[in-house]
Amino acid sequence: MPIRLRFAHAGASVSLRRGGGSLIKKNEENPGSELPKVNAAPAVDLAAWLEELPPTMAQAQLLALALPRRTETFSYLQPNMQLALARRLDRRDLVEIVTQMSADDRADLFNHLTPEEQQRLLRGLAREEREDIRRLSAYAEGTAGAIMTSDYATLAADMTAHEAIELLRRKAPEKETIYRSYILDCERRLIGSIRLHELILAAADTRIEEIMDHAPVSVALDSDQEKVAQLIARYDLLALPVVDKGGRLVGIVTHDDAADAMQAETTEDFQKIATVRPFSQSVREASMGVLYRKRIFWLVLLVFGNLFSGAGIAFFEETILAYVSLVFFLPLLIDSSGNAGSQSATLMVRALATGDVALKDWRNLILRELLIALALGATMALVVFPVGLLRGGSEIALVVGLTMLLVVIIGSLAGMSLPFLLSRLRLDPATASAPLVTTISDAVGVLVYFWIATAMLSL
Amino acid sequence: MPIRLRFAHAGASVSLRRGGGSLIKKNEENPGSELPKVNAAPAVDLAAWLEELPPTMAQAQLLALALPRRTETFSYLQPNMQLALARRLDRRDLVEIVTQMSADDRADLFNHLTPEEQQRLLRGLAREEREDIRRLSAYAEGTAGAIMTSDYATLAADMTAHEAIELLRRKAPEKETIYRSYILDCERRLIGSIRLHELILAAADTRIEEIMDHAPVSVALDSDQEKVAQLIARYDLLALPVVDKGGRLVGIVTHDDAADAMQAETTEDFQKIATVRPFSQSVREASMGVLYRKRIFWLVLLVFGNLFSGAGIAFFEETILAYVSLVFFLPLLIDSSGNAGSQSATLMVRALATGDVALKDWRNLILRELLIALALGATMALVVFPVGLLRGGSEIALVVGLTMLLVVIIGSLAGMSLPFLLSRLRLDPATASAPLVTTISDAVGVLVYFWIATAMLSL
Repeated sequence: MPIRLRFAHAGASVSLRRGGGSLIKKNEENPGSELPKVNAAPAVDLAAWLEELPPTMAQAQLLALALPRRTETFSYLQPNMQLALARRLDRRDLVEIVTQMSADDRADLFNHLTPEEQQRLLRGLAREEREDIRRLSAYAEGTAGAIMTSDYATLAADMTAHEAIELLRRKAPEKETIYRSYILDCERRLIGSIRLHELILAAADTRIEEIMDHAPVSVALDSDQEKVAQLIARYDLLALPVVDKGGRLVGIVTHDDAADAMQAETTEDFQKIATVRPFSQSVREASMGVLYRKRIFWLVLLVFGNLFSGAGIAFFEETILAYVSLVFFLPLLIDSSGNAGSQSATLMVRALATGDVALKDWRNLILRELLIALALGATMALVVFPVGLLRGGSEIALVVGLTMLLVVIIGSLAGMSLPFLLSRLRLDPATASAPLVTTISDAVGVLVYFWIATAMLSL
Repeated sequence: MPIRLRFAHAGASVSLRRGGGSLIKKNEENPGSELPKVNAAPAVDLAAWLEELPPTMAQAQLLALALPRRTETFSYLQPNMQLALARRLDRRDLVEIVTQMSADDRADLFNHLTPEEQQRLLRGLAREEREDIRRLSAYAEGTAGAIMTSDYATLAADMTAHEAIELLRRKAPEKETIYRSYILDCERRLIGSIRLHELILAAADTRIEEIMDHAPVSVALDSDQEKVAQLIARYDLLALPVVDKGGRLVGIVTHDDAADAMQAETTEDFQKIATVRPFSQSVREASMGVLYRKRIFWLVLLVFGNLFSGAGIAFFEETILAYVSLVFFLPLLIDSSGNAGSQSATLMVRALATGDVALKDWRNLILRELLIALALGATMALVVFPVGLLRGGSEIALVVGLTMLLVVIIGSLAGMSLPFLLSRLRLDPATASAPLVTTISDAVGVLVYFWIATAMLSL
């Protein structure tokens, strides 16, 4: 069972308060009060309740739980709370919990400890868990290796269905999922997989190799977690096996861990689209300092971008003094360009993230985007033309209409191309945030506007 | 098995081309060519391959598949392709496929047909399937009812584990998932659930009621699909039971269908954030007409919003003529306000969507937002102050610095509050798009800027 991401956590808690589960109804009216049915409540709800308590009480309540339940509840706590408790607990209590945690959760907790705490914990663990932690905590964040678990069930190809079921019965309680078992050859290479219900449906003496799937989908250790989630979604898998370079099975990523990873990536995309530097905490719980630091970087950077627009304006100061009504249309024109650009950029960022669109599609899409932008720009030119007539006469109207057409096209093409460009440079396309596209479109828009004005109004 | 959403579809296909599965390696170099191993390839890959073919060939290839596989492949086709084939196939062939489809896929296909086609299809089906379609196709889009399936396994509380396993063995092949079975009383009320591996682990004569979970999490028929997905994620469920007002089990939502629904909602949020009206097609495959229509609405609407900024400028024309260097700072100031606002709005839209933040959190968050905005605004005022000094002297620098502080605060507060306001009005918070927030901030920014300028420069 995974450590729930913070936002997923808080999210579901809200849903429950809207009436999702009758279990914590009582809690709803008086959050932080005693949980009504400690024994019946799902562990995730217990964890949410513990997080509302002061650490001393949370520790006492956690230790009051029976052991398998204590571990499960601990696994659902947010990383910060786990850390706080891990530091308060006796080493014996901590080791007891950590030994029972699933391999991926254990590695996550381990990664959050200081080197001294890691050593202290490792000394308390049995050799098997120790090696498991060392292995799982070594993979780069965002890869299949980092979100996989080593709790999977394996079978041999020459077992019978009956033998396999008996083996699973004996081993099942330890494993994160037994709904699919993996078949390995003598060198631990993945040669097949089989679902529990196929085993149950098969005649008792059927050999596994006759009924197993001989070509299970798998990923490499360093595969991007986004790709892992996409494969799990495409093939409706409960878990995806992870293999090393030699094709040996090293772990599985379960569907829920992949979904959590995907949710975190999506939230990161939202943050980037809004020029907020990624942070993985809950917005509700993030400190003011964190939010300030995550937001100020791009805000200041974009100020310098906007100075280009200012410089453009300064260059055309005479035009402005001669036709001050041009300024009236300035926000309108540069915003429209930015809006069209944000539309294209955001659509592409999402399409690249879900895999709807690939790098190679750029050529096909750019022509279509040009035609759409032409239609959008023409429509908007028609809309602003009468406003131009009213405010400044026919010459101004022409300048404004023509500018609108051009800046919408420029904005759209820039907005569409930037995510591809970033992706090609192996940067995250989501960095092509709406404000960045807007700033670029603004600077270009100012130049185009006053250049057209200067030319057409023959200044 | 669900109909894969288009973007999920295309997405995974991309991943595969990057080297995910060796199965379709050959296909990679020559897309649209014959699939190398029709018998070994997963149905979802077969479906992706069929979609590349002209309809006549796709039909022939589909009918060449053996029956259970034909249905599975058909279920994975995109809705448009399903429709095209459904219209080409003989009624007998169509009925054969439709009868075997999972209940939710069948209802989805049905909903896409014209009323005449629906009648034609219904006449060919057995009474059970007919009633199932009528029932499932009646629920409002976006609710649990619309994405649930009626293919679930049920058990009685007084069965033994052995009897239950035998029952599942007989019924399993028809059911979408048997990893969790539901226990109903004599009036079909949901009284418990049990996992397959608990049945397998239990002694053969254990009665279900002794080992079942007596308080399974469930949702109402009209629950929002977002809430369904949140509950499934929170409790790491494979499926969530859906009950009617009397607590009777009417269906289950499987984790993969919930994930697809969630992915669609997230994409919609991205579209809304970028002022693109929601469309559920793939960006790659959407026609130019669709993209034009989905984009033009807000672009034109925002033009009228921007006219307020223009009107503000017109009102202060004299100030501008007296201090034309003020225009230099105009894009900078209004963009900064818009950027800060987009940051807040997008963070809140996402936090409300994942449930990280609830309506009632507004009070707590608004004060924090004010303090953060104060810090952001002060930093940015310090950044632009020297630029003001350089371009226009100390008075202009003061005006620009003070304006920056105020507009960043106003933009942030507006950006944060708008999603809450929309949510309270029962509108989608994602409508508080970055461009809308920018437009509002712009208009306010222009007024604040020139008002401060007029006052401080004593015009």
